[in-house]
Amino acid sequence: MPIIEMHMLVGRSVEKKRKAVAAMTAALVETLEIKPETVRILITEHTEEHFAVAGVTVGARENVSAVPLT
Amino acid sequence: MPIIEMHMLVGRSVEKKRKAVAAMTAALVETLEIKPETVRILITEHTEEHFAVAGVTVGARENVSAVPLT
Amino acid sequence: MPIIEMHMLVGRSVEKKRKAVAAMTAALVETLEIKPETVRILITEHTEEHFAVAGVTVGARENVSAVPLT
Amino acid sequence: MPIIEMHMLVGRSVEKKRKAVAAMTAALVETLEIKPETVRILITEHTEEHFAVAGVTVGARENVSAVPLT
Amino acid sequence: MPIIEMHMLVGRSVEKKRKAVAAMTAALVETLEIKPETVRILITEHTEEHFAVAGVTVGARENVSAVPLT
Amino acid sequence: MPIIEMHMLVGRSVEKKRKAVAAMTAALVETLEIKPETVRILITEHTEEHFAVAGVTVGARENVSAVPLT
Repeated sequence: MPIIEMHMLVGRSVEKKRKAVAAMTAALVETLEIKPETVRILITEHTEEHFAVAGVTVGARENVSAVPLT
Repeated sequence: MPIIEMHMLVGRSVEKKRKAVAAMTAALVETLEIKPETVRILITEHTEEHFAVAGVTVGARENVSAVPLT
Repeated sequence: MPIIEMHMLVGRSVEKKRKAVAAMTAALVETLEIKPETVRILITEHTEEHFAVAGVTVGARENVSAVPLT
Repeated sequence: MPIIEMHMLVGRSVEKKRKAVAAMTAALVETLEIKPETVRILITEHTEEHFAVAGVTVGARENVSAVPLT
Repeated sequence: MPIIEMHMLVGRSVEKKRKAVAAMTAALVETLEIKPETVRILITEHTEEHFAVAGVTVGARENVSAVPLT
Repeated sequence: MPIIEMHMLVGRSVEKKRKAVAAMTAALVETLEIKPETVRILITEHTEEHFAVAGVTVGARENVSAVPLT
């Protein structure tokens, strides 16, 4: 541990995801004072119809007035 | 928050899933007295070989006597 | 299925949580056209130090300028 | 309950996964003294770019010196 | 991997939980032909108010007609 | 999104956890080129009996020969 599950929208490049897991791991190694090999990260990507804020999926948002997408 | 992860079998239409996240969000807004934009829902769909009840995947069930699929 | 994991901050009453799971289940039964007994909901509550938005835990936010807490 | 989420790398056969969920369920039935139909297992498979140890995805590891892949 | 998240009701003894994780791990080692040290299991226990079937928490069920608790 | 679930052993100070979520968020903001307020982190802590490697809980490990605790 730590074991990290990261949920995000599909569409990012392999390169960006590799940088993200490297940077997150470095952040945990430094702040929690742990060894890198104790950090595991699992990524799950969700399509635009599989993430909703305020009851509206991202895929449906374009047709809807905008709540900031966070 | 709340942040909701919803696991279900693949195969439902976009329309049904949009209705489901809208209705779940409305249910939480009313019962927890929160604002809609605080509700996030992540859907993860599983194939019939990736959900098992009583040690038998849904995909294998058709060849097996029926435990009610819940 | 569906199987729902609901993450929220600690501090809501049993009564409110019972109403929330009943209402969410009813929402899914109606929109997905499923039987109520197929719906399972797991609640995980998080303390104010165990939920962060924009890199700041809820517990630390009071000392910080406000990003809307969603 | 129990409800089990199993994360693993993609690439195993249906046959192996069916055996795995059957064996895990039997293990829980025996050790927890529960009925098989109370055990639900959800499998989520991750690609080699979606699992990282020590900040390096499995897909990137082949180009890197080896930390044991556990 | 595999990484397992096991959700269950509170109340089981340490001894039973130790047996359960040992037996599940052995089941995976045998069926997936993997080394034991690749298997990680995370247990999350839920109180009776934090698990609901059919819209009713386990804690509320005693006052309600019985849907089989699975 | 991203929405991050971080599982770790109990026992770290509030200060360390605040630093960890701040550093992880900064890491994601930089590598994924996103706004900080889109990053949500949920921490779940597990006791020594609720995390097992190789079929042995951390709590039971002291009595057992050591597999490296990662």
